[in-house]
Amino acid sequence: MTYDDDNVFAKILRGELPCHKVYETERVLAFMDIMPRGEGHVLVIPKAKARNILDAEPEDLAELAKSVQVVARAAKEAFAADGLTIQQFNESAGGQVVFHLHVHVIPRFEGVPLKPHTGQMEANDVLAAHAERIRAALSA
Amino acid sequence: MTYDDDNVFAKILRGELPCHKVYETERVLAFMDIMPRGEGHVLVIPKAKARNILDAEPEDLAELAKSVQVVARAAKEAFAADGLTIQQFNESAGGQVVFHLHVHVIPRFEGVPLKPHTGQMEANDVLAAHAERIRAALSA
Repeated sequence: MTYDDDNVFAKILRGELPCHKVYETERVLAFMDIMPRGEGHVLVIPKAKARNILDAEPEDLAELAKSVQVVARAAKEAFAADGLTIQQFNESAGGQVVFHLHVHVIPRFEGVPLKPHTGQMEANDVLAAHAERIRAALSA
Repeated sequence: MTYDDDNVFAKILRGELPCHKVYETERVLAFMDIMPRGEGHVLVIPKAKARNILDAEPEDLAELAKSVQVVARAAKEAFAADGLTIQQFNESAGGQVVFHLHVHVIPRFEGVPLKPHTGQMEANDVLAAHAERIRAALSA
């Protein structure tokens, strides 16, 4: 399995596609999932090229995990969530659709199931407002 | 939220309950999920006390992520899987049932959905054999 430089997250990292950024370090970027399975659904990705967990550099995974925690805490606070579901899919059989390593951080609320993958894009202004809420929680 | 020393994974770490161990380091333990949602379903946990991702020490998360990769590669090889689904649940609303931080590593196969959470325990000899296959892949 190889890394495809034309995947949409590679394009976001190169600035060729926009994103609703919530968090960035030297090695990690976090932004809103445009097809959220719940309110405040964020993706956290390494800047290094990695198809998924199978080919990632261990140190990139370590940095990614630390950033997932930072984003998870902020997203939980921003949406007053009751919990969080974290998912990471590897290869098509594992649920992966975009072939740049990414971790889903999904705030969860008692009695509210995850929305199915419908392919339905969330409205841009909703995503922008949600990103702002998480950024505010991060800077508090 | 606090850490409950009587959770079942704390008991496994103390040796008070058995497990089908597949991998162990100074900071991490991995063993078979006794209610697997797919063949070769492994749990990877830090030895340090952490309820979930919200209260874990960042360095424990970093070590955990590296170990998840090691176990994921071995589980994929051991079962000739097509992919892997990684899940980590936080608080009841997020899907958490046992309140010691754990990461689910589930080998996946084209066309085979995840089994639902039935509460049905897998046979002990099946789990033992699956653990042996993953240990063999790890030591190869």
